[in-house]
Amino acid sequence: MKLHVGSDITVRAATDCPIVAMLRPASGLAQWLSSETYAFDPWVPSTEYVDGYGNLCQRLTVPAGDMRLRVEATVETEAELAVAPDAPYTPVAKLPDSALQYLLPSRYCPSDTLESRAWEIVGNAAPGYGQVEAIRAWIQARIQYRHGSSDASTDAADTLDRRSGVCRDFAHVGMSLCRALVIPARMVVGYLHRLEPMDLHAWFEAFVGGRWYTFDATQTRPRGGRVVLAYGRDAADVAFISNYAPLETVAMHVWVEEAPPAAAMPPAPPRPTT
Amino acid sequence: MKLHVGSDITVRAATDCPIVAMLRPASGLAQWLSSETYAFDPWVPSTEYVDGYGNLCQRLTVPAGDMRLRVEATVETEAELAVAPDAPYTPVAKLPDSALQYLLPSRYCPSDTLESRAWEIVGNAAPGYGQVEAIRAWIQARIQYRHGSSDASTDAADTLDRRSGVCRDFAHVGMSLCRALVIPARMVVGYLHRLEPMDLHAWFEAFVGGRWYTFDATQTRPRGGRVVLAYGRDAADVAFISNYAPLETVAMHVWVEEAPPAAAMPPAPPRPTT
Amino acid sequence: MKLHVGSDITVRAATDCPIVAMLRPASGLAQWLSSETYAFDPWVPSTEYVDGYGNLCQRLTVPAGDMRLRVEATVETEAELAVAPDAPYTPVAKLPDSALQYLLPSRYCPSDTLESRAWEIVGNAAPGYGQVEAIRAWIQARIQYRHGSSDASTDAADTLDRRSGVCRDFAHVGMSLCRALVIPARMVVGYLHRLEPMDLHAWFEAFVGGRWYTFDATQTRPRGGRVVLAYGRDAADVAFISNYAPLETVAMHVWVEEAPPAAAMPPAPPRPTT
Amino acid sequence: MKLHVGSDITVRAATDCPIVAMLRPASGLAQWLSSETYAFDPWVPSTEYVDGYGNLCQRLTVPAGDMRLRVEATVETEAELAVAPDAPYTPVAKLPDSALQYLLPSRYCPSDTLESRAWEIVGNAAPGYGQVEAIRAWIQARIQYRHGSSDASTDAADTLDRRSGVCRDFAHVGMSLCRALVIPARMVVGYLHRLEPMDLHAWFEAFVGGRWYTFDATQTRPRGGRVVLAYGRDAADVAFISNYAPLETVAMHVWVEEAPPAAAMPPAPPRPTT
Repeated sequence: MKLHVGSDITVRAATDCPIVAMLRPASGLAQWLSSETYAFDPWVPSTEYVDGYGNLCQRLTVPAGDMRLRVEATVETEAELAVAPDAPYTPVAKLPDSALQYLLPSRYCPSDTLESRAWEIVGNAAPGYGQVEAIRAWIQARIQYRHGSSDASTDAADTLDRRSGVCRDFAHVGMSLCRALVIPARMVVGYLHRLEPMDLHAWFEAFVGGRWYTFDATQTRPRGGRVVLAYGRDAADVAFISNYAPLETVAMHVWVEEAPPAAAMPPAPPRPTT
Repeated sequence: MKLHVGSDITVRAATDCPIVAMLRPASGLAQWLSSETYAFDPWVPSTEYVDGYGNLCQRLTVPAGDMRLRVEATVETEAELAVAPDAPYTPVAKLPDSALQYLLPSRYCPSDTLESRAWEIVGNAAPGYGQVEAIRAWIQARIQYRHGSSDASTDAADTLDRRSGVCRDFAHVGMSLCRALVIPARMVVGYLHRLEPMDLHAWFEAFVGGRWYTFDATQTRPRGGRVVLAYGRDAADVAFISNYAPLETVAMHVWVEEAPPAAAMPPAPPRPTT
Repeated sequence: MKLHVGSDITVRAATDCPIVAMLRPASGLAQWLSSETYAFDPWVPSTEYVDGYGNLCQRLTVPAGDMRLRVEATVETEAELAVAPDAPYTPVAKLPDSALQYLLPSRYCPSDTLESRAWEIVGNAAPGYGQVEAIRAWIQARIQYRHGSSDASTDAADTLDRRSGVCRDFAHVGMSLCRALVIPARMVVGYLHRLEPMDLHAWFEAFVGGRWYTFDATQTRPRGGRVVLAYGRDAADVAFISNYAPLETVAMHVWVEEAPPAAAMPPAPPRPTT
Repeated sequence: MKLHVGSDITVRAATDCPIVAMLRPASGLAQWLSSETYAFDPWVPSTEYVDGYGNLCQRLTVPAGDMRLRVEATVETEAELAVAPDAPYTPVAKLPDSALQYLLPSRYCPSDTLESRAWEIVGNAAPGYGQVEAIRAWIQARIQYRHGSSDASTDAADTLDRRSGVCRDFAHVGMSLCRALVIPARMVVGYLHRLEPMDLHAWFEAFVGGRWYTFDATQTRPRGGRVVLAYGRDAADVAFISNYAPLETVAMHVWVEEAPPAAAMPPAPPRPTT
């Protein structure tokens, strides 16, 4: 399906504030970017680099005062999520090298402390996809989605104690429990069609049955219509804005709309005579 | 300066033809992509990857029949080229690791056979920028720009014999002579503002004085207003379309226009109450 | 100086245990590997890959029972550490892209929670090297080195509370405080000449004055004679063995000795007649 | 099988000569490095980096006079080559991204000019492995191995004309004909057990049936016992020494011997009491 997605963010800095933003979706295996715009007001010079996870990162300095960033994109993505209840556990020896880093604990995923908890939760679920789905369903049933119940320092162990959080906390718990079972799990941030209320979103992927599958503990059923902005080990890696001086978000508007299936291509220019 | 650039290309395949396209400019140190669209008609699935030089590469299969690819972008780039007549030769021991590959001969740059020729041409020019500029000026003076005088198999030695070629041949000669003097040189393809006649263009960069400088032997003076599509060792690496079955280009239209300096940002959405 | 370093490790697995080891030093900018051996007993097939930080990682499966890994290397490294009390703070906007990831919090470095603590500790120290040295000296003075006072789940906040730890904890505290001041800091594991008692060691590097400098809070003065095994964001990234099933270390012997300066090269073979 | 391999090379420079050497084998999927030494006489500082193909590259400056480089390694490698006469052609759309670069022409492989020649040679051979083997057998039958019949500027088209060459020329012809048939082919340099006369060797790999297979047109039957030093598009990428000032090889001795299968591990150190 084709989605129009966008974010219009106004930030306020008291003094020059260097930031790294991850607001430009990339084409790749999972999605195709057919159009985008990326604008600032006021204009400042910006550079872009690719981080160790393959994400596009924009570097710029927000000058003192208000600054608007507006990013829009039209992206072709899957309407339906791949679901594979029978996908077996992938033994460590069969994992691709690139998946190994997603077994390690990270800032918000202290998986090294959650092994017995994870085994309790998955019970007799089938090793692999079945276990990840058991984790996802457990989170959805047992942890309350509550805006404001967590902050930028809340990790998965905190959320398991408090039994409440937002999408990033749900993902952190899911990833931590997967890694505790030696299943690679990575965080994804991006857009989800028909998310209520609309906002930038976070979910996770787990590597079972020889590939990455998407899981989202905030949703009652598998839902496609996702546009990826960044992958990482947890929220520390994939903040949509990492700021290195005080910075306030004074407004943020996010949208996702279905785009007409046919490409709106202008008429072809006249054929050259050459 | 801000440029609107675009290409509208119609190709024709007799049977399914897999291609790799390099038509999406990337943001980086040299330019900032503020907007782009990338469309095909008919629509086919496509994936994108980053090659060993950091270029964005689009993989797709052109079905039998005609297909249009239309790519447009708005890019912030330098209006003036950096020029540094005094930039000295950078000794090999001081080159960054990433520049070393650009010393090697390549398909269209048999620099291993051109050492004495290169020394003849640069004469007493100052080692470094002075030598590269001497090479550039020599090519411009001695090689005739003539459309149709070369083909996809023409290398720099052929062009030195024939004394005619097009932009890619000029770049191949420039790079071959630089490498013969142990100066790293790489090919660049992209857009040039006010190129006459307008088309996709090719030029080269040489590493002297501790950084890359741009040289264009098709032009009488240093000109900025360039948008890069790809970097490589020569034309083999940076074809705007590499096709792996017969493919005919039946139409191609390229444009570069100056864009208004102010970002055309729509009004901000109403501030959320949260 | 030239060092002979080595580790002889015996591990015991109850069942097949997949591991990732980081025991092979790499040549690079900081050290030159002139000789090494890497042996297992029993022999099992192993593969090697390069992780996202550039470390060499060995993948193998330890079969049930005891297994010895023995790694030895002769490495040319700096006898004296670079020390630069006047190296200034490097503003974020001037950092190389590759250093930015070392500003982020990580599993054992919750720098997001330690900003006021860090400012207290550095007081009026000169921004840059001066601050990092103030942090290093504070750790050395205020945190007790005590074997067994921490475990694999201890993070820098725990160590700041308990006021005791081992080398990895000292490094975690140092890095966390640096990152809280927006100074990139990365963990290093490897060998240190004349460490007492001899063991594999951990320290950290901070990016100030435009480059990485080494800091070691376990030592009373700057000491060279270091051989690097791996770099990472914290101990999660650079475990010398990451095991994915139960694994016991039943013996471990580590050595570092100064090697004779002259290469012990055997006589040259007779000149061929060709 | 386990092989001891080594090279002892003496080079002579009239003035300081910067070089890039590719003499250190790396562990990877195809081989495991259990021991190595890398020595120079006289000693000079050297650094190492990983190039775009994953090869280890040593940078150093040979001072005026004679210099010996001696590299030895013990490597576990396959005794038998994988042979798969039925492996089918892999369509371009199914190739991994990383294989695409090996379809392009390169300095010594002007595959763009050899398409009709390639089809003539393969005749009715089965698409895929069968075609590559037909190419390999044709080269072995029709091109004479003759030392001194080619030089550093000889490309595959030259060799097809002259009908003689050495191992690198055989590989260049093999790769050029494969690429002309849209089969990815890459050059390999390294050691071959029982090569007669013993020397550093070159061969090629082709991507068919979903993986890389080894082909060696200098040999009458598929032979294992290979140790890889470097991969690349052709000899320009994988010179064992690339020199950037005049450099003469005054002696070169290469050896490959079968090593005893059992690891010669010294007795374990006494168990520590901790």
